[in-house]
Parts: sequence; C-alpha cells; structure tokens
Amino acid sequence: MTTATVHRVFNFSAGPAVLPLEVLESAQRDLVALPGVGMSVLEISHRSKPFEEICFGAEEDFKRLAGIPAGYQVLFLQGGATLQFSMVPMNLLPPDGTADYLDTGVWSEKAIKEAQKVGAVHVAASSKATNHDRIPGQGEVRFSERPAYVHMTSNNTIFGTQYHFVPEVPAGVPLVNDASSDVFCRPVDFSKFALTYAGAQKNLSIAGLTVVVIREDLLERAPAGLPVYLKYATHAKERSLYNTPPVFGIYVLRLVLRHLIAGGGLAAVEARNRRKAEKVYAAIDGSGGFYRGHARPDSRSWMNITFRLPSEELEKRFVAEATAQELSGLKGHRSVGGIRASIYNAFPEAGVDALVSFMAEFQRRAG
Amino acid sequence: MTTATVHRVFNFSAGPAVLPLEVLESAQRDLVALPGVGMSVLEISHRSKPFEEICFGAEEDFKRLAGIPAGYQVLFLQGGATLQFSMVPMNLLPPDGTADYLDTGVWSEKAIKEAQKVGAVHVAASSKATNHDRIPGQGEVRFSERPAYVHMTSNNTIFGTQYHFVPEVPAGVPLVNDASSDVFCRPVDFSKFALTYAGAQKNLSIAGLTVVVIREDLLERAPAGLPVYLKYATHAKERSLYNTPPVFGIYVLRLVLRHLIAGGGLAAVEARNRRKAEKVYAAIDGSGGFYRGHARPDSRSWMNITFRLPSEELEKRFVAEATAQELSGLKGHRSVGGIRASIYNAFPEAGVDALVSFMAEFQRRAG
Repeated sequence: MTTATVHRVFNFSAGPAVLPLEVLESAQRDLVALPGVGMSVLEISHRSKPFEEICFGAEEDFKRLAGIPAGYQVLFLQGGATLQFSMVPMNLLPPDGTADYLDTGVWSEKAIKEAQKVGAVHVAASSKATNHDRIPGQGEVRFSERPAYVHMTSNNTIFGTQYHFVPEVPAGVPLVNDASSDVFCRPVDFSKFALTYAGAQKNLSIAGLTVVVIREDLLERAPAGLPVYLKYATHAKERSLYNTPPVFGIYVLRLVLRHLIAGGGLAAVEARNRRKAEKVYAAIDGSGGFYRGHARPDSRSWMNITFRLPSEELEKRFVAEATAQELSGLKGHRSVGGIRASIYNAFPEAGVDALVSFMAEFQRRAG
Repeated sequence: MTTATVHRVFNFSAGPAVLPLEVLESAQRDLVALPGVGMSVLEISHRSKPFEEICFGAEEDFKRLAGIPAGYQVLFLQGGATLQFSMVPMNLLPPDGTADYLDTGVWSEKAIKEAQKVGAVHVAASSKATNHDRIPGQGEVRFSERPAYVHMTSNNTIFGTQYHFVPEVPAGVPLVNDASSDVFCRPVDFSKFALTYAGAQKNLSIAGLTVVVIREDLLERAPAGLPVYLKYATHAKERSLYNTPPVFGIYVLRLVLRHLIAGGGLAAVEARNRRKAEKVYAAIDGSGGFYRGHARPDSRSWMNITFRLPSEELEKRFVAEATAQELSGLKGHRSVGGIRASIYNAFPEAGVDALVSFMAEFQRRAG
C-alpha cells in the first residue's frame, strides 16, 4: 500500500483530535482482515479469542504504561465524559450525602449539574469570577464537612487551564478526576485518585470509548436498583465485556498504547508536550502584548492554548489565513473568543513550529 | 492499494458481524485522510463541516432508505441495546405505570429486568415454557389495563426466532421494538412503532453505535431530573451532537446505507435474505431428521439459524470441521446448544452455499 499521495493538514481541533500517523497506517493496513484472523476488527465477535487478546492486552498495556497500582481496575465504557457526569454521582453519592466539586469551567459545571440530580453538591472552589482563567490554589479550597467524594477536571479545553498539582483532599475522601483532555500527557500518580475517567478521543483513541480507572473498594458503593449499564461493578466483574464494547475504539487504544510504550513511555511524552507548549507560550509572551494568553501563567494548559489578538477582526483574519496555510481548527470557543491551539499528545512538533512561525509572520504583517 | 492478498473466512458470528467488503475497502482507502479534508475520519471534530455532512447525511439516508415517516427522529447514541433497556423505561414508564413486555428470550428478559427497576412490568406473553422456540401469536397476548408502552424484541439471536408480523397493541399505546439483530433485514412500516432501537453491530455498522428511531411526541414524556445523556430529548434537540458521538460508527453507517441504497434498497435486501435463509432451512428440513431446527417453522429467524445434531459429540465435530473449512463462529449459544449460523444482511450468499454443502457432506460422513 502506498500512502505517499495522502495529504494531511495540521489539525488543532479540541477533540476528536490527531492520532499518531503510525497508528492510522497500522489500522489502515489491517482494516479489511486482521492478519491470521480472516475478518476485519470491525467484524469480529467481542467473545472471540482475537478480540480478548486485543481487549485484555489493552487493559494490561494501559496498566503498565500508567503504572496503575494494584487494587484498581481499568474499564472500557461508552457514553463519553457526559455519561460519567451522571455515573459518578449515581454510584458514589448517597441521596443524603454531599459531593464536593472544584469548578474550573464549562465541563466542571456540566458535571455539577448532573450530580445535583442525585444529591447535594458543594462547590469547594471556583474560578468562575475571572472567567476560569486559572486553577484555584489549594489554599482557596473549602471542603464540606464530610464529602462523599471530591470531583475535579484536570484540564479545561475551553479556557486552556490545567492542574499542575494534585489537590489534597480530606483523609479517606475519594478524589475523582475528569482527565478526558489530558490523560497520559505526562506520568501521573494514579494512587492519588480513587476514580479517573476520560473520553478517549483526545489522547487515547477515538470517539465512542471512555476509559475509567477505578479503585476496587468504590465498586460496592452503588445503591441497589441502579441500571445495569450505569453500575461500574457490572463492567468490572466482566472485564468490560458485560455487553458488546466499542471494539474498534479498544483496538485503536491498543495501537496507541503500544506506540507510546515503544516511544519511551509517559516520561518521553511529558518531555515532548512540555517542549511543544513552551514554544507556543514563548511566542505569546514574546509578542510584546500582540498575543495575550487567557490562562494565568501558573495554570497554563499543555493541551489547549488560548489567546486573544488586539481585535476580533484580527482574530478572524488570523484564523482565515492560518487555515489557508493548512493550520486547521484554531478558532477559539465562544466562551473565551480568540484563538485556541489544541496540541494533544499526537499533535506533531512540526505543526507547533509551523504555528509559531505563522504567529510571528502574521504579527509582522498585521501588528 | 492492492487487496488481492487479503484472506477472509466466512464469519457466522452472532455479532459484531460481517460488513460489506465494499464498505470495508472504502473505509480502508480513506482511513489516513478523508479526501479533500486532510485528516482521518478518526480525528475530525464532530463540530466540523465534514462531519456534519457525514452525520446529517447518514440521518437522511437512513430516513430515506427506511421510509421513516414525518414526525420521527433518528438518533445516534452509545451504550448498545443494554443502555436502551434502561433508557426506554426511564423515559417512558411513570413510577405508578405499568409497561407490557413480550418475552421471547434472553434479551427480552434483560429488558424486563431493567424496566422493573423503574416501574411495574406485566409480561403480556412469553415463549419461556418451550425454551423460546417460537414467537407468541397475537391470540396469546394479554395486555394489562393501560400499559405505558408495549416492548418487543423482533429477532432473538440466541433462540433463532423472529417476528414475521407486527403485534397489534391497544389503541394509542406506543409499541417499542428492540430491532438490534434484524433492523433493515427487509422493509418495515416504522409508523407502527413509536420507538425502535438497534445496536448497530449486526446490520447497520460497527459496535459502539446505537440507532434510535423515535416518534416526536414521546420526547416530552421523560420525567424532570433524568440524567442528561439518558434523555432522548437531549439528543433529539441537538441532532445527535449534544456530546461527542461515536464518529467512526456513524461514518461506517453512512457507507453501509449508501451501499444498501445503491444495491436496490430494502426490497432487494429482503429478497436476498429470504433466499439465504430458505437455503439453510431447506438443508435442515431435507436432512431426514439429522439436523433438527430449534425454532418452530412459523417463527424461524432469517438472521440466526439454530439447529441440533443427533449428539453433542457430533455437534463438536461439526463445529471443528467447519472451522477447519473456514466456516467460522458456528457454535450455538449455551441456552440452546448445537449450531447457530448467523447470516445477517452482509453475510455473503457464497458463505450460505458453502455451509449447505458442508452440512450435506458432514451428514454423509457422520450420519
């Protein structure tokens, strides 16, 4: 197969997002028939040996790459972070309990809204007053008396902020993290989180797969009578094969995991992500105020970089001219306006260099 | 790209199942970059124009191919039939109401169990006494006084039975159908159903996509406080783009729909399915009792054909020798035992012919 004629642009989309080219080419090569199986991975039974090898292999590679401690399970679910916004309180929040939420933007607020349908919510800290331009520091957090759990959103795609520390929570209180947009952007101590969930379509795989990492003692907390699909214990007991899982998403996840392992693991990912983000932030900081970052420096995201230009008219021109140069998807979310460059794990460094050059060139012409 | 060396076997799996080779080859060709887009369909934003074209195009092709009447919406969800087992009662069954279920096997019973968590369930007919070897006739059905809805399972993968009529329900009562394993196996009058749901991994697309066809008046029935993802109205309002949908599953669905439309629509599908099923049933009926069908003749499924041999030992040999001849996935489900040949829409007629020849040959040797 020749891919020499395939033309690809730089995709700065906030998600679904770029996959490693090697992963795409591998999936393409085997798409009509998996070697030695004689069927496409799109067609194989989820109860077949070839799929068990893929699914359990992905689970094991995930645990190995992330250093998941003993006593945790990795689950492959559906419904995205949106369904997790409900599953977390349905499983962990008793009707007379209170859950504490750290509000860092739109996604935290959606999670809060769903939890309020189940029990009481206490907002333990919020960056709302400054349009979520920062992550609240540990000193600002005021927990409720006995929270059932504490929920955080480690990276905020819309505002371009990210936790660069793990918040301390009261002893024995489970910390739950929505890591949809920064999972595996660097090594993480998963033992600090009782439950981590992530829609896969940014750093892990494709849309339609949600990965949950859950400490086993949480599995038994769910009330009786919960819908079977919405109970973590259902999936934990059957190793994600209670019902037909998103087979192709798990297959792509495995390809991504192997790609990351072969590339030196999460420490190597961290070094590359840090370098990529620093290049763009340096371009912003060195522009003499032409480009203005939305996030405060200590809260800057490595994954989504948000900035404004001197006028909305210039921002429009910036996006249009960038698109013409095949830098695609740079328009910011309406909540912040301006520009958003999403540079997840698989976003190539050459694309960051192209953006930085374009920013300098655009400023010369328009500044 | 050359696919001449690709080796494929006949895949009789009950699901996920065979896709049209043309669909696989088309998906393969464009997997690294969609023509004119410069990104893989696995990477494009669900808010982008190219994906809107795919998603709304799939919705329109679906409506056109199926003849969906005005006043219905087609939704692309996640979580499989399993999540629908809960979503249907959560949206349609008031806590003081009763839902009527037609019990035709394991999948109906799973649906019943989830509905019982929401309200009262009345089993209006059941084939359980004869190990679900048939579809209960209209005359056997005893509805409750004022059912909130009636639920049926149009095809039963495990037992190999299928409705060949649409049950009559009391005037004004919504009929809900789990069509996961026989949707689009022939033309259907969708106006007789208030809600149809189908996991896509048999006749429509790949695992991880669920299609729901819902009459609009049902959208407003959901109680306040339902989790946002679990409310049909959430997805109807946003044309399946409330949150990130299973992008690749929708893309494959569109390829399948176009393949079906180009091939002459559902009437052509029906003719082919009828012919395929009749060949296998003729082989069973003509075997002088060596092969014994599980389903009664009037309830025989076109999609899953279940039969026994004179002994379990012969059944084991049958499966082993068939597998060696590249007839894969013929082992029956433990609830029935014996053999199950799943021959969904995309299962090739050549595979049916190969099975029928093998059955005759096996009987000659072993009978």
